[in-house]
Amino acid sequence: MVEPGLNEATVEGPLGADDLRKIDSYWRAANYLSVGQIYLLDNPLLREPLRPEHVKARLLGHWGTTPGLNFIYVHLNRVIRARDLDAIFVCGPGHGGPGVVANTYLEGTYSEIYPDISQDAEGMRRLFRQFSFPGGIPSHVAPETPGSINEGGELGYSLLHAYGAAFDNPDLLVACVIGDGEAETGALAASWHSNKFLDPVHDGAVLPILHLNGYKIANPTILARLSHEALADLLSGYGHEPFFVEGSDPAEVHQKMAGTLDAALDRIAYIQAEARGGNKETLPPRWPMIVLRTPKGWTGPKEVDGLKTEGFWRSHQVPISDVRGNPAHLLLLEDWMRSYAPEKLFDAAGKLIPELAALAPDGARRMSANPHANGGLLMRQLRLPDLRDYAVAVQTPGRAQAEATRVTGEYLRDVMRLNAETRNFRLMGPDETASNRLDAVFEASDRVWMEPILPEDVHLAHEGRVMEVLSENLCQGWLEGYLLTGRHGFFSCYEAFIHIVDSMVNQHAKWLKVARGLGWRRPIASLNYLLTSHVWRQDHNGFSHQDPGFIDHVVNKKADIVRVYLPPDANCLLWATDHCLRTYNRINVIVAGKQPAPQWLSIEEALTHCTAGIGIWDFASNDQGGEPDVVMACAGDVPTLETLAAVNLLRDHLPSLKIRVVNVVDLMTLQPKEAHPHGLTDREFDALFTTDKPVIFAYHGYPHLIHRLTYSRTNHANIHVRGYIEEGTTTTPFDMTVLNGLDRFHLAISVIQRAPGLATPAAHVIQRFRDKLIEHKDYIRRTGDDMPEIRDWVWPYQADAA
Amino acid sequence: MVEPGLNEATVEGPLGADDLRKIDSYWRAANYLSVGQIYLLDNPLLREPLRPEHVKARLLGHWGTTPGLNFIYVHLNRVIRARDLDAIFVCGPGHGGPGVVANTYLEGTYSEIYPDISQDAEGMRRLFRQFSFPGGIPSHVAPETPGSINEGGELGYSLLHAYGAAFDNPDLLVACVIGDGEAETGALAASWHSNKFLDPVHDGAVLPILHLNGYKIANPTILARLSHEALADLLSGYGHEPFFVEGSDPAEVHQKMAGTLDAALDRIAYIQAEARGGNKETLPPRWPMIVLRTPKGWTGPKEVDGLKTEGFWRSHQVPISDVRGNPAHLLLLEDWMRSYAPEKLFDAAGKLIPELAALAPDGARRMSANPHANGGLLMRQLRLPDLRDYAVAVQTPGRAQAEATRVTGEYLRDVMRLNAETRNFRLMGPDETASNRLDAVFEASDRVWMEPILPEDVHLAHEGRVMEVLSENLCQGWLEGYLLTGRHGFFSCYEAFIHIVDSMVNQHAKWLKVARGLGWRRPIASLNYLLTSHVWRQDHNGFSHQDPGFIDHVVNKKADIVRVYLPPDANCLLWATDHCLRTYNRINVIVAGKQPAPQWLSIEEALTHCTAGIGIWDFASNDQGGEPDVVMACAGDVPTLETLAAVNLLRDHLPSLKIRVVNVVDLMTLQPKEAHPHGLTDREFDALFTTDKPVIFAYHGYPHLIHRLTYSRTNHANIHVRGYIEEGTTTTPFDMTVLNGLDRFHLAISVIQRAPGLATPAAHVIQRFRDKLIEHKDYIRRTGDDMPEIRDWVWPYQADAA
Repeated sequence: MVEPGLNEATVEGPLGADDLRKIDSYWRAANYLSVGQIYLLDNPLLREPLRPEHVKARLLGHWGTTPGLNFIYVHLNRVIRARDLDAIFVCGPGHGGPGVVANTYLEGTYSEIYPDISQDAEGMRRLFRQFSFPGGIPSHVAPETPGSINEGGELGYSLLHAYGAAFDNPDLLVACVIGDGEAETGALAASWHSNKFLDPVHDGAVLPILHLNGYKIANPTILARLSHEALADLLSGYGHEPFFVEGSDPAEVHQKMAGTLDAALDRIAYIQAEARGGNKETLPPRWPMIVLRTPKGWTGPKEVDGLKTEGFWRSHQVPISDVRGNPAHLLLLEDWMRSYAPEKLFDAAGKLIPELAALAPDGARRMSANPHANGGLLMRQLRLPDLRDYAVAVQTPGRAQAEATRVTGEYLRDVMRLNAETRNFRLMGPDETASNRLDAVFEASDRVWMEPILPEDVHLAHEGRVMEVLSENLCQGWLEGYLLTGRHGFFSCYEAFIHIVDSMVNQHAKWLKVARGLGWRRPIASLNYLLTSHVWRQDHNGFSHQDPGFIDHVVNKKADIVRVYLPPDANCLLWATDHCLRTYNRINVIVAGKQPAPQWLSIEEALTHCTAGIGIWDFASNDQGGEPDVVMACAGDVPTLETLAAVNLLRDHLPSLKIRVVNVVDLMTLQPKEAHPHGLTDREFDALFTTDKPVIFAYHGYPHLIHRLTYSRTNHANIHVRGYIEEGTTTTPFDMTVLNGLDRFHLAISVIQRAPGLATPAAHVIQRFRDKLIEHKDYIRRTGDDMPEIRDWVWPYQADAA
Repeated sequence: MVEPGLNEATVEGPLGADDLRKIDSYWRAANYLSVGQIYLLDNPLLREPLRPEHVKARLLGHWGTTPGLNFIYVHLNRVIRARDLDAIFVCGPGHGGPGVVANTYLEGTYSEIYPDISQDAEGMRRLFRQFSFPGGIPSHVAPETPGSINEGGELGYSLLHAYGAAFDNPDLLVACVIGDGEAETGALAASWHSNKFLDPVHDGAVLPILHLNGYKIANPTILARLSHEALADLLSGYGHEPFFVEGSDPAEVHQKMAGTLDAALDRIAYIQAEARGGNKETLPPRWPMIVLRTPKGWTGPKEVDGLKTEGFWRSHQVPISDVRGNPAHLLLLEDWMRSYAPEKLFDAAGKLIPELAALAPDGARRMSANPHANGGLLMRQLRLPDLRDYAVAVQTPGRAQAEATRVTGEYLRDVMRLNAETRNFRLMGPDETASNRLDAVFEASDRVWMEPILPEDVHLAHEGRVMEVLSENLCQGWLEGYLLTGRHGFFSCYEAFIHIVDSMVNQHAKWLKVARGLGWRRPIASLNYLLTSHVWRQDHNGFSHQDPGFIDHVVNKKADIVRVYLPPDANCLLWATDHCLRTYNRINVIVAGKQPAPQWLSIEEALTHCTAGIGIWDFASNDQGGEPDVVMACAGDVPTLETLAAVNLLRDHLPSLKIRVVNVVDLMTLQPKEAHPHGLTDREFDALFTTDKPVIFAYHGYPHLIHRLTYSRTNHANIHVRGYIEEGTTTTPFDMTVLNGLDRFHLAISVIQRAPGLATPAAHVIQRFRDKLIEHKDYIRRTGDDMPEIRDWVWPYQADAA
């Protein structure tokens, strides 16, 4: 007997009749479960006629992309079994949730993880009910979905995550479905060129499957309406060998898909064998990819209320609406669901029949149970060098000069070396590793580059582990995929341009928050940023390169996910780098400059100071443990420098003034203990900042953030913050601070104006500082450089003079 | 005599010998001026031997891309003159500043705008000095650069700006140079498909010139290392007909470029003539584009210190460093600059010789003086309908229901109609115009679509003025280009995903800030956002679609640029939309929901309330003009609804409590007057919020922002803000507010806990509200829906009952 949806006459191709029948049945089972999730509250197996009360009151979900995903999934299952593949499934089409969930349920993983959703009628009822339901699961693939490393909410990152997963996993196949809607996004459009960074010797394979179902929410898609020739050109231009699978007759498309998948996997095996056998002539490889063109909402209702639905955008979400209130719609839904013949797919108990269950791979070979997609299971701690070995010697504060990022570059070089064998650490950056002065890493690894390498090229190699491409999106997406599959990484970026990935960071933070609540998802390594080339040192780039707002952006995320560090010198940056590489499930943001700058703390002092995250700098304070007249706080390398220079000015001119200097490395310490795990208690905060003395706070970024973090503190009304107030331009380093009122003179004037008990002599000092500012302006206008007394200023006191 | 750099033997092609010589000379002049800007403080014409003190102390700038840009510019000048073209130049390569500035100086525009930079030796000295110098100009193309609509700071937006400029400018040619570094970014990679949205009948032409100089800062570029075949495939796949111009011998490349530019422009003229003649068969057109492959740092030093420099990334920035300190380097620089033979290019006074000056187009035909690149010159005010005609009738607050965005859609439809003839208004959205319920606009215009249109398609047309593509980057970039060339637009977007363009918004805000300071740049229309499908109504999408942080992001920008509106109902949204379309030089963010919701204000009340931006809602308050016991403030539609429902609860249970309701539409009113032009004075603020009463503030977004805006107000310590605290999931609308403590019960409890003088009976009421919350949880767990008494709650008081 011919199964529903299959036409016996067309059965020819790689699949035998029996295999074809089974694959199609499995697909129907997944489609049935998908429709059930969107619509049903009860009567999951349709063992009685469908009644309005069996249907959800609020119909929410997405059908359109789902049958195509189910189709791909069952075909991947076939080749995984046939070839014993180690494979994961990355689902790009945003709202394919019902399909992927259905498949993970069919292969048993879902019930293993969520025992309430058992493989029987009651479990199926719960499976249906929870979908897009309060307390249930979202309509897209999400952290809750077993086997997923890609949230289907914000679109565009599937292919990047797929590549991130494949790097350094030579035996892994990452099947990545890309929706034709998603393909219009910037991140996805750029990520096709990721294949230029995939080494067939040491990395696994990515098999992109571009799924053209033709429509977005209410529009055709660009790629689906390209001519065949233009699309083939485009994909060839991306460096792929495209295989086309197109049609709407299930039997025919099953045969084409099976044959094509075999061909593509043969091609991958060939590329890998050649490369691993040492043949460089086939490089860069032309990796295969599949274009699958099938109708949107395939196998769904052809028409609803006389309007074309299957094969059109009307099947994008819920094709039949108002099912409870419209008897004709109820009947249409029932007919549709019964067209899959659930009685032939599930046994009396409601479990998938054994003949079909046998189609799924076993154990960890199931894509939903593959440990790579729950990367924490595979994560190994990094081997880290002793950071003391890289320390800048600081006998007297402020005398030694160093470029902080250059020092950290040496540390990272050795992280690279110590983990070379396990190949689980990568450095990402948009073409800025050397420009950000981390170039010591090139002593340990080159940049990965699969395109031709010329004799004059430096530090390019197929097996490089430094990843540079002029796209923050690509760096971010690759790193996310790499971390999510259990590895470690570090992303250095120009501070201003990290905003390009604001939205990706949001989504990663959301993933982490949800994943932390799922016991079965194991912790993954933190996402670590080093933001350098920061706002204060854009001497020639000027205003367009000045934006410290990424800190503000991440601080909106859940407190237990986010950390922000502002190391004031090289030894503190070493600590921050080392610390962040040891953490997991977090987003760590470090901001530090790359320019030569005075060094304040010895490595031992740095360890103590940074571990506390905040503290009084005794060497710079003259309140000798008593109550100060004024607190000068600073966070960030440039604000620290200007604060100490201001202390110098004040001590020279007003030696009786008692100044306390508080330096903040860990910005989160400023928040109340209840708001953040690193927050100081009010008592601790008051002990540092006093309850009533003026606090002049020099901050790296937008001043408001400090107010926001401290608004509930006792002394808040006395905290006067200076920071970046969007006054940027092309100018000297010191002039940038002057324009924003963060320079030593403005800080010192601010102190004098607020410190109690300073009358006539102080006015004279203020005038002197104002004159200096005028002198400065005149000097740079003439010379283009800062005055030597400012540029070359050195902290004048011995360590023991404090 | 053969000029430097030209080999007479190779002179053959479209250019006669004399034309070739002149074009090459002009190019040399531009190159000379570019090198001079990077290096020289003085001795601009090298009339004496170069000495260290003639050279800048700090060498900052970018040479690598510059000669290629200069090359393109002079060739464009030729065809502009030959064909009387109306053309502008969009410069993608980030740091091409010296080149574009040099050209605008050569054609006289620079001196017209900045008379100090005159066309003589002293002017040239100043031109050189100001570059990357304090108080001068940045090293990239910027608002200060005449003829520019694209800042070269953050990369990736050139092609989008070019298309934005070309839309609705049928006679304009936009030449857009795309750097091969920039081409790796997400935004640029996606923007190639912009040609599917360009109508050859009503729009102008974009001529992309992909400039392959092979290298970024320290790496080769992806596109430059593709095989010729792969690159040709890729560009064909993008829908272009690529013309290749490759070489390093100037004479040869001049001839190729001249011939190719003629061919490409002929092709554009043909496409336009066919389409405008009514021939639909040639659609979609295959627009020409040029690939120009020339050496990085072309004509610069071949080697420096024995290392390859010309044709390599070492010429990216300043190819010869330490010129002041290293005599050999000084000599190398002098030789390099003299290789351009300045004495043959500039006359005794230091002005470009007339023979060469005659190569530039005249007047407004000069690309640097084309009014399209100073769009405010061409901007016409929109014709706007009377918003009263769209008002929702509101006799009694809270009785009428409406979908706010649907009402605004009708208003926008008529904006579209009223300006149909001038064709200067477009609506942008990532495939969400209908989903965001603005679909009334389709009665006035279709979506633009140049790919094939099928019989079942709806509202697609070549001449459509609604622009939908699944990329926020594309919507944003097109709109920026459209505004910068003097037109108007409106961008509707899902609230969470607008973060995708955070960085683009930054750059546009920076552009506006700088442009406002330049008297010659005329104001342009504001960038208007409608953020809908907001955080509180993601019933099935859940956490991934919930992020109200864009407001926080824009509030960091300069106060006079940013406005944020949170209209509480449809009539207020009408006001906000109408208001924003009348403003200029701003970034306006409106946040409003699309779901059916109660309406509070009649249109006249809405006009009064919104014009003030903030005010007491008398109908909801019972403090009768006296001092209240508590202030309940709200900003945003959902917070307003929950606040009024809480007022209802409190009045029922604690009728003696005097409550004042303050609604905030214009968020900027909360800031101090000194911080923002819309800010209330302290006296005004105190009059609304009292100086000592508890304020329970229900806010649409992250609560911290309200603290940040109000931290300096008298009563700040009493302001208790509730908003989105990252507790999101798939759930009902009301449950979302419960999870974040923004619901009516939590608000009412918060009032009771803080209102003075409520003891025993209040505890009982609190318990009652807590019971209600438990009942709610239980109800949604069972039904998936909100309790009818909550879902269908209606403000129970008559207007006159307050």
